Amino acid sequence: MRLRNKPWAAALIKAHPELIQVTPDQVADQFEKRQPVRLEIGTGKGQFIFRMAQQNPSINFVALEMQHSALAVLLKQQVEAKLPNLQLVVANANTLATAFAGWHFTEIYLNFSDPWPKTRHEKRRLTYRSFLTQYRQLLVPDGVVQLKTDNRHFFEYSLMSMNQYGMRFRQLSLDLHHDDTPWAQKNVTTEYEDKFAAKGQPIYAVRAVFLPAHAKG
Amino acid sequence: MRLRNKPWAAALIKAHPELIQVTPDQVADQFEKRQPVRLEIGTGKGQFIFRMAQQNPSINFVALEMQHSALAVLLKQQVEAKLPNLQLVVANANTLATAFAGWHFTEIYLNFSDPWPKTRHEKRRLTYRSFLTQYRQLLVPDGVVQLKTDNRHFFEYSLMSMNQYGMRFRQLSLDLHHDDTPWAQKNVTTEYEDKFAAKGQPIYAVRAVFLPAHAKG
Repeated sequence: MRLRNKPWAAALIKAHPELIQVTPDQVADQFEKRQPVRLEIGTGKGQFIFRMAQQNPSINFVALEMQHSALAVLLKQQVEAKLPNLQLVVANANTLATAFAGWHFTEIYLNFSDPWPKTRHEKRRLTYRSFLTQYRQLLVPDGVVQLKTDNRHFFEYSLMSMNQYGMRFRQLSLDLHHDDTPWAQKNVTTEYEDKFAAKGQPIYAVRAVFLPAHAKG
Repeated sequence: MRLRNKPWAAALIKAHPELIQVTPDQVADQFEKRQPVRLEIGTGKGQFIFRMAQQNPSINFVALEMQHSALAVLLKQQVEAKLPNLQLVVANANTLATAFAGWHFTEIYLNFSDPWPKTRHEKRRLTYRSFLTQYRQLLVPDGVVQLKTDNRHFFEYSLMSMNQYGMRFRQLSLDLHHDDTPWAQKNVTTEYEDKFAAKGQPIYAVRAVFLPAHAKG
């Protein structure tokens, strides 16, 4: 969703280059420790990634979001908390593979991404094959793409797109909030997810990996 | 579901070898025309396959069901209608590939199959990999497996199993009765599907193909 412009956002972002950057060039140097790193694409106001970073101190997290006004909400929290394993990047996802060239994430998170329902906007969906190609380049072998959404058609599209790309599903739920699997039990929610699930509607989720080239089939 | 035993079923089956058989050896000879043939596994009382056969006279249909009492309901209808493109087989699905060795179906239908929810019964689910191997043997290249179910966990399992087997999804719906795609519009329902959908609950559906060995990936 698009947020109202926050006049203080630009100044706050500029004031904290140790926590947030507009290009990822220097991000890696800002983490306290060298350890496995995961990426969230479209962080929004950041509840998910902030909690993930809190709960997993031995993993680094990069929060990518193109809306300054959204990411500034997370930045405000991070200015207080100064989690040493969380870095923010204000940028869009279109040139991910270039911007993060040489990075090897262990997981990539897509949380409640814009479904872009119109067919003519298919290429903008974050599970369109050109994005999957970028994720493959950015993930370690056996690295995971985890997607959650409340949008049925976007989920159907994403399953089809991942399947046709040759990805393999590791876990899949058509109602994550009513599952009792370990995966569901340790689910960390987004702000949007909390609101939506409170209405009793299903949260769809999948974890998928890319096959190594020699093991396709 | 298991039906009450119908005392008249055995006699009716025996009386109509031109419409129903207990082994598929002679089935092919009973069709009026040689034309593409499709298979339904677990026909139940047969509303789906009977309507499909009515609507598609240029396709042959084989209805496979292990419960005499269920298939006898369809047989009664077929004794009246004598659709020249419908044959019934009373047998279970475990030895499909042997029983139908040499057949090449263009589509295989799995409609509201027993979900066998317990993990220890996984091998009995009709989308367990040993069944998928049989379907692959029985389908023409690019032949389709179409599955419909109301059971969320069985659908999740089936998507995972098909995906991990290397099948490719062609169409997928998480609420077939509320879609306006051509596929949804021409959906032919089963008796069970009608009852279940009337409660407003979603019908899950997928169409998937096996990749040719040289095109895997």
